Amino acid sequence: MDERVHEHAEVLVDWSARIEAGDDVVVSVAEDAHDLGVAVVEALGERGANATTLYGSAEISRAYLKGSEQGSHGFDDDPAVERALFEAADAYLRIGGGRNTTATADVSSETRQAYAKARKDVREARMDTDWVSTVHPTRSLAQQAGMAYEEYQEFVYDAVLRDWEALADEMAAMKEALDAGEEVRIVTDRDDAPDTDISMSIAGRTAVNSAASVAYDSHNLPSGEVFTAPYDTEGEAFFDVPMTIDATRVRDVHLVFEDGEVVDFSAGAGEDALASVLDTDPGARRLGELGIGMNRGIDRFTDSILFDEKMGDTIHLAVGRAYDACLPEGESGNDSAVHVDMISDVSENSRMEIDGEVVQRNGTFRWEDGFDG
Amino acid sequence: MDERVHEHAEVLVDWSARIEAGDDVVVSVAEDAHDLGVAVVEALGERGANATTLYGSAEISRAYLKGSEQGSHGFDDDPAVERALFEAADAYLRIGGGRNTTATADVSSETRQAYAKARKDVREARMDTDWVSTVHPTRSLAQQAGMAYEEYQEFVYDAVLRDWEALADEMAAMKEALDAGEEVRIVTDRDDAPDTDISMSIAGRTAVNSAASVAYDSHNLPSGEVFTAPYDTEGEAFFDVPMTIDATRVRDVHLVFEDGEVVDFSAGAGEDALASVLDTDPGARRLGELGIGMNRGIDRFTDSILFDEKMGDTIHLAVGRAYDACLPEGESGNDSAVHVDMISDVSENSRMEIDGEVVQRNGTFRWEDGFDG
Repeated sequence: MDERVHEHAEVLVDWSARIEAGDDVVVSVAEDAHDLGVAVVEALGERGANATTLYGSAEISRAYLKGSEQGSHGFDDDPAVERALFEAADAYLRIGGGRNTTATADVSSETRQAYAKARKDVREARMDTDWVSTVHPTRSLAQQAGMAYEEYQEFVYDAVLRDWEALADEMAAMKEALDAGEEVRIVTDRDDAPDTDISMSIAGRTAVNSAASVAYDSHNLPSGEVFTAPYDTEGEAFFDVPMTIDATRVRDVHLVFEDGEVVDFSAGAGEDALASVLDTDPGARRLGELGIGMNRGIDRFTDSILFDEKMGDTIHLAVGRAYDACLPEGESGNDSAVHVDMISDVSENSRMEIDGEVVQRNGTFRWEDGFDG
Repeated sequence: MDERVHEHAEVLVDWSARIEAGDDVVVSVAEDAHDLGVAVVEALGERGANATTLYGSAEISRAYLKGSEQGSHGFDDDPAVERALFEAADAYLRIGGGRNTTATADVSSETRQAYAKARKDVREARMDTDWVSTVHPTRSLAQQAGMAYEEYQEFVYDAVLRDWEALADEMAAMKEALDAGEEVRIVTDRDDAPDTDISMSIAGRTAVNSAASVAYDSHNLPSGEVFTAPYDTEGEAFFDVPMTIDATRVRDVHLVFEDGEVVDFSAGAGEDALASVLDTDPGARRLGELGIGMNRGIDRFTDSILFDEKMGDTIHLAVGRAYDACLPEGESGNDSAVHVDMISDVSENSRMEIDGEVVQRNGTFRWEDGFDG
């Protein structure tokens, strides 16, 4: 086996999930993620942890949902086995990497939504564990990224096998600035795209230094972003990075906010999918996240939110659900059944201000060489 | 997808496991059993059952066990997640069909035994569900059987896609004879092999009409055997059907019983593996099962106990653990950590007697055409 697979497993088990002897760990292995599954479970055995392995197959999910459509029994809102499983688990390691990123494309959005609603308790039990999501580089993901397989493997390991401690130290400066600030303004002025000029309040909110470890309230590997939960958004924003929503390609999203809510929107492609997201519930029209990508090991967009939103020189905003970690104890932030991230390339003709002071210009942070305040 | 895969799934879900709306079902899918997993989960969705899918990979199991050997933490005797999972489950459907039937060959027997011992509670919770074990025909199993892939697919579906109701009716006659009897004697007299002449008591024991359904206390698909739990065995027996014990090929086993215990044994190959089984514990030297194969859809040996022991014209004896279903309420039968089946071809020069009356001669039962009492 490629030595990088073992290194990936060790980062996941030790740095990200902080597994110790006696921990009860659930591992989910996608169809083509077998090799990383093997390496992870071997590491769990070495650490003296218990391992239970789920088959995280999108084709199995599709089959269940299509079967349910045929049977018309609806969904049980207390699936006892899965709830018991996650309630008993200390950690959940999700290893993506299937055979077809559009495997569930023919499942209706009604069915998806009914299923997601019935499984709210399962999802909450899962989120209460020390969960971490990663992917094994597969041919299907390489294809989604428009890359050769070996090229994509290099890309994934460049993003994952980093000096996470050093990146966490660097990201601490951004967290500090956001925690101290009250208002963020993002401005872009490019010839080839509509302008962005958007402001939002972050007063009283706590930023997460998302350093790919549960010790930092961070649940993605790779990570490398700092994010918080904004509110009272005003202005307009353009997102030039393409994305996929429920198997539909969406690009060139433009959102207009008034009094914290989206009041107008358009997309260059996939506008119906965007509309469907925004119409989910009232919270789907408000921001749940402002994130600043800081992982410079990620050097291109691959149509995967796990990587795209962490890329250096990018900023993303998400409509929908806010993360509890950003909120004061006991306060609930924006609530929604959805959380959809949208990304802007800020490498040129852009600036981000906190309380009127520029902290990032054209992708360069104020503590970096070449910053032009 | 091959229509037979869907038919297999329907037999498993409806005839074997008797799944109904609201049931909580755990499905375990081996590495190459994806297609049957998809068909089974689709059927579960149609029936309105909940489905949780485990990845039943022998390579994952090996990785965990080898990792544990490296880490030297030993095994936790309360793996909370897996216990909770099976305690919450109504049914457990195990779909075998990996990539390599010898995937765990380099795991030491000490490690296997320590792991099996630590997981006693998990095993008991799993056996308390309506569990059914089947296999998807894979190239690895075809190879184990010495068959071409398409040929092996035909073989599996001939064994699985039967009129189970009709076979259950036929097997009821054998169950009746065993339930009414007190002593079984099996005699073979062949030129090419040592003679068998063995007697055992079955007084007070109840035979299981193993018709591939939990409704018949039967947990294998295919099945097609009638079995009971004998005791006070005397005499000697020869088993001419080859088998694999812990990845070791074993053939031509000869056992000599006195006062119910094996007092002498030999094997034409794999004698050490046989000795290791018999030395496991005191119960490993006593019989746990007498089984009569009655599935005439199985027409050849394939080095898989799931099929071999159900083949028509065969009788098998197992050393080790007896099944509770054969015992009077509250009585415990032969107890052991092992249960190893050994098979004799009885198609020629053989007879089985119950209380001195011949019920099967040269493979033909007394209720069949051509029976020569």
